[in-house]
Amino acid sequence: MPAAPVVDLLSDTLTQPTDAMRRAMADAPVGDDVFGEDPTVRRLEERVAELLGHEDALFAPTGSMANQLCLRLHVAHGEELIADSLAHVLRAEMGAAAVLSGISSRSWVAEHGLLDAAQPLALMIPDGGTYQVNTRLVVVENTHNFGGGTVQPLDQIEALRAGTQPRGVAMHLDGARLWNAHIATGVPLATYGALFDTVSVCLSKGLGAPVGSVLVGSGDLMAKARIWRKRFGGGMRQVGILAAAGLHALDHHVERLADDHARARRFAEAAAAAAPGSIDPQRVQTNIVVLDVAGAGWTPAAFVEEAGRRGIRLYPVSTTAVRLVWHLDVDDAGTDRAIAELVPLLERGPLST
Amino acid sequence: MPAAPVVDLLSDTLTQPTDAMRRAMADAPVGDDVFGEDPTVRRLEERVAELLGHEDALFAPTGSMANQLCLRLHVAHGEELIADSLAHVLRAEMGAAAVLSGISSRSWVAEHGLLDAAQPLALMIPDGGTYQVNTRLVVVENTHNFGGGTVQPLDQIEALRAGTQPRGVAMHLDGARLWNAHIATGVPLATYGALFDTVSVCLSKGLGAPVGSVLVGSGDLMAKARIWRKRFGGGMRQVGILAAAGLHALDHHVERLADDHARARRFAEAAAAAAPGSIDPQRVQTNIVVLDVAGAGWTPAAFVEEAGRRGIRLYPVSTTAVRLVWHLDVDDAGTDRAIAELVPLLERGPLST
Amino acid sequence: MPAAPVVDLLSDTLTQPTDAMRRAMADAPVGDDVFGEDPTVRRLEERVAELLGHEDALFAPTGSMANQLCLRLHVAHGEELIADSLAHVLRAEMGAAAVLSGISSRSWVAEHGLLDAAQPLALMIPDGGTYQVNTRLVVVENTHNFGGGTVQPLDQIEALRAGTQPRGVAMHLDGARLWNAHIATGVPLATYGALFDTVSVCLSKGLGAPVGSVLVGSGDLMAKARIWRKRFGGGMRQVGILAAAGLHALDHHVERLADDHARARRFAEAAAAAAPGSIDPQRVQTNIVVLDVAGAGWTPAAFVEEAGRRGIRLYPVSTTAVRLVWHLDVDDAGTDRAIAELVPLLERGPLST
Amino acid sequence: MPAAPVVDLLSDTLTQPTDAMRRAMADAPVGDDVFGEDPTVRRLEERVAELLGHEDALFAPTGSMANQLCLRLHVAHGEELIADSLAHVLRAEMGAAAVLSGISSRSWVAEHGLLDAAQPLALMIPDGGTYQVNTRLVVVENTHNFGGGTVQPLDQIEALRAGTQPRGVAMHLDGARLWNAHIATGVPLATYGALFDTVSVCLSKGLGAPVGSVLVGSGDLMAKARIWRKRFGGGMRQVGILAAAGLHALDHHVERLADDHARARRFAEAAAAAAPGSIDPQRVQTNIVVLDVAGAGWTPAAFVEEAGRRGIRLYPVSTTAVRLVWHLDVDDAGTDRAIAELVPLLERGPLST
Repeated sequence: MPAAPVVDLLSDTLTQPTDAMRRAMADAPVGDDVFGEDPTVRRLEERVAELLGHEDALFAPTGSMANQLCLRLHVAHGEELIADSLAHVLRAEMGAAAVLSGISSRSWVAEHGLLDAAQPLALMIPDGGTYQVNTRLVVVENTHNFGGGTVQPLDQIEALRAGTQPRGVAMHLDGARLWNAHIATGVPLATYGALFDTVSVCLSKGLGAPVGSVLVGSGDLMAKARIWRKRFGGGMRQVGILAAAGLHALDHHVERLADDHARARRFAEAAAAAAPGSIDPQRVQTNIVVLDVAGAGWTPAAFVEEAGRRGIRLYPVSTTAVRLVWHLDVDDAGTDRAIAELVPLLERGPLST
Repeated sequence: MPAAPVVDLLSDTLTQPTDAMRRAMADAPVGDDVFGEDPTVRRLEERVAELLGHEDALFAPTGSMANQLCLRLHVAHGEELIADSLAHVLRAEMGAAAVLSGISSRSWVAEHGLLDAAQPLALMIPDGGTYQVNTRLVVVENTHNFGGGTVQPLDQIEALRAGTQPRGVAMHLDGARLWNAHIATGVPLATYGALFDTVSVCLSKGLGAPVGSVLVGSGDLMAKARIWRKRFGGGMRQVGILAAAGLHALDHHVERLADDHARARRFAEAAAAAAPGSIDPQRVQTNIVVLDVAGAGWTPAAFVEEAGRRGIRLYPVSTTAVRLVWHLDVDDAGTDRAIAELVPLLERGPLST
Repeated sequence: MPAAPVVDLLSDTLTQPTDAMRRAMADAPVGDDVFGEDPTVRRLEERVAELLGHEDALFAPTGSMANQLCLRLHVAHGEELIADSLAHVLRAEMGAAAVLSGISSRSWVAEHGLLDAAQPLALMIPDGGTYQVNTRLVVVENTHNFGGGTVQPLDQIEALRAGTQPRGVAMHLDGARLWNAHIATGVPLATYGALFDTVSVCLSKGLGAPVGSVLVGSGDLMAKARIWRKRFGGGMRQVGILAAAGLHALDHHVERLADDHARARRFAEAAAAAAPGSIDPQRVQTNIVVLDVAGAGWTPAAFVEEAGRRGIRLYPVSTTAVRLVWHLDVDDAGTDRAIAELVPLLERGPLST
Repeated sequence: MPAAPVVDLLSDTLTQPTDAMRRAMADAPVGDDVFGEDPTVRRLEERVAELLGHEDALFAPTGSMANQLCLRLHVAHGEELIADSLAHVLRAEMGAAAVLSGISSRSWVAEHGLLDAAQPLALMIPDGGTYQVNTRLVVVENTHNFGGGTVQPLDQIEALRAGTQPRGVAMHLDGARLWNAHIATGVPLATYGALFDTVSVCLSKGLGAPVGSVLVGSGDLMAKARIWRKRFGGGMRQVGILAAAGLHALDHHVERLADDHARARRFAEAAAAAAPGSIDPQRVQTNIVVLDVAGAGWTPAAFVEEAGRRGIRLYPVSTTAVRLVWHLDVDDAGTDRAIAELVPLLERGPLST
């Protein structure tokens, strides 16, 4: 393992559990959750179901498994889902929908990952009959990771729901960072929840819990998800230890996401002031900054390397850009440091060698 | 089974074997092709491999299986292919790539199915590493069925090849109707063949054979395809009976595709003259006409029904259009009849009831 | 391709279509069977459904696909079938049930492939609930290929049915050579048919048609099978050409299977007289002889090679035995020749070198 | 959730983390294990790899996923594994090998789950070529759960290794309870490890950690397993919290398994003394007792219900027997209580009603 960076903007999955969160885990009453007997897991599931206005919920070891369980519930072996081409479920879950569930997929290309309901509505084939694949599900990601932490417009989600529901196409919300969308917009979680058949949320990204995601939906769907969770190898035992961290995070780490958003925006404004083409600060709505470095003459790989030399860790997200993610373990001083180290690189470009 | 229509433009899969083709089948020497002992099958495979300039070939019972075998050869369980969103492999093979091979897919949206190399090149992730799905294959369909018999521009195929090859992404040509592209453009089959790692061609569409497709590629790939053909349930015995029809079609039914193209164009011109918004005749390059009927006030379903009442069979291909396909069993008189029956419908629109 | 052997006992899949069968194919009325419009296919399906006493039937390109479609109908993705460890569906279909359908399997070991109902009844888990895999199907093969053409005892099939039906476990009959069982025992095909939820039969083994199998079951199941046949790549077009051969075979090649059985028995008796340990003639009930050659000092590979040198082709079926299969293209003279060439090899053993 | 039983013999997965174990978790240094940066996970992986004498190791959320990752490493999509018919991988992982990996399976029937190397050696088909499925892996479970905690004979494992290795068939050890075999026999863990290509061990059964399993193998295999763990949805973040419990258990909970064994044996002896047909105490080698209750006139369901009324929880493991499992949370007093409550039930049988 390399020496730890001074300011780690690689991902919001990196957060360390706080001391209070560690105590909550150490004190949690637990049981065998494969038999449905872990009281802390149950408490977390009920809490998340209520927050999102759904009937029931299920704990899952990862965001990928939470998503994949939801996909499995809606789309039969041999049928199809659609999502935008940068969606986490298509791009960053290792092709799992096809492998685990035999689910086919098609995608549309969305600018900054932003939902335009007309695109999926034109793409879907709800009545493929016996000769064409049948579209059973549209997936929406909110906020959109590879799109740059984009918050999806509520009216587009509503328009999509209006177009899919009468034609029997389900909707799943990949809400790994739904907490960020909620804090950025003030839209209640349950308002988002009401527009989808299932939702997955993640405890180990912005919320800062070490491990875990939760999916929500009807009681029937969650009962089926429990069986598939076992089949996918996600049926854990005294996992209330981890659920306790999630409950703690829901109490203490939701409102503070506003700080991450403000810091990301502050960085973006500094970058834009120095290198206007690198970022439009208006698009930095949450904790993610996708920064164009090609305009300044950098390859993303070279920029990441140079940043690393200066104690800042980033992720090369495309052929032209790098990604910076704010989280619990990056404070104002870290943000200042990131600005001080990185903005000059955008101004001067790479040194010729 | 319903009464046969007078002019059947539903699909070019409908053609009856000619008497000469039936004789060729009846006289064919055959053997057990599972053991590689059918001389007529071997002769067909060698002929098609040579036509397309590839090392070896394999007979398959259907175009879908020929395509699916090729996808399987290039993309490992858990990896990804990309294709346009109307591609036959994604839309009309019942999600087979995910089911049979655990292959994930993403797509781009192509106007009239026309290839613009920049779209797949922007979409592909050849170096996803261990966190993102890896794109291993781009599929090009030529001519493009749901795009309206579109012929793919050779320079765009070449640009795609130039962009994929250095990055280790393979290319497969779904050439179910490559014969039509070849006749429409004069581009040699082997010129197309040289730009792809594998090609599938179909004997039972424009060529008029009753059953069968052939895939081509390297000897190594074809040896693997033979194993997967058995696994997919496509290892047939004395199938030289069918291969003989394919050989006959290669001798007698390729050049005549020009007649289908001329008839389709003649129909399109008549339709455009009467109802200019219904079709741009310049886009009718081969044997398929995608006719907008919504502009004239029809739903595709109602238009198909009214055409059926007049002895013409069509296919409702989208929410605004119907598809007409010319083939061996539709002659000039049938084309005249189709014009006489359908063009007035475009002019007058549906009768109010 | 090697020079043809004089007497080819490799498999009953090798048979050449007769002249009369070729004429039947050449004259068959055909249509596009993907659209359900091939009258000869329909006639064959109705005929086979009636023979086996089931509601409906479906043509398939191969016996493997016919079996795999039936497995898919009964066993959901993630559930289980059981069969004996030498069953064709487990051993000789390339693991297709797991690949195509995500079906898990367990097996029991059956002496000569003979069904003892107590074995599957002890193995099945019909009520696995949410922690264990659920057994949904038992497969019985009759006659049993790798068991040596064994005919399954009717009382054991009935006992199995009595034990599975009340517990919701379906039964599929792999009847690739059910014609041989019917001729050997006189038990009507419909008597076998009545004991199973689905049956597959093959036209291209003992019956001598070049290609094709048929599955039977309820109308609902066959409608589903049609969709999956398309997904598996088995939806062919004017395939009445092949169905016509099947109809001809049903008229002309069923009763004559008794000749194959008599010839196989005659060979077995000659072998047993000369080398008593090589075969028990009482076990040769149909057209297959599994001959122990290890007792005479041969490896199966060496025996097959020596036989080949003498113009007889065989199959090395295990580490101790070879398999000989009688069929339409092996007559009395061929049987005499096989006896004359092979029995002395059993008597003398391999020459030392 | 029902009221907790007084003595819970349902499973050794039920154990509560001890206070010391909770402290170890609360104090563990952690990092993002998806990026390979969790020091506690790494420490656990190195420790288990060393214990079993393998090059590398990988943490997994469950025993099922640990097993399924190992199966995936050895058996390609479309190939085969074999195991005994009661093996956990075939019976109790919900058909996952077929679903997740397209792996086909066959089984042999083993008395009490005991390995007799001749059975798998006769079953395997290492050289199936292009017509038959190829056996790539044999799975051995030690101790054998559904067999009754059976310890596999070392000489049989060695005989199996001798028969499989030269023919290219790999071996996987499902060692969920290998700790128990090691304690019962004194055979070093590394002696078992040396006989297998991969081993999985479980931390949350006898060892009493709340969650987690570890697989071991070569460095190459573990690198591939890491990719598949992500695809299966098992890539967790600061999971060192759980790994810390595993490290604590390795320090403190291995030797004490001897107590579980002694208590299980004591119960078995009491049962055998009162109801000799119910159990052979010689077969109780570890912490599991499979008790025949049918001989005393009970159905397993009725016996489990009556035991429950008396504060003892059991599992109905077959149509004639119940399973009792000793673990960290059942002491001598609990064992006395189980004897006092259950043995009389075996003596008197169910009360007539």
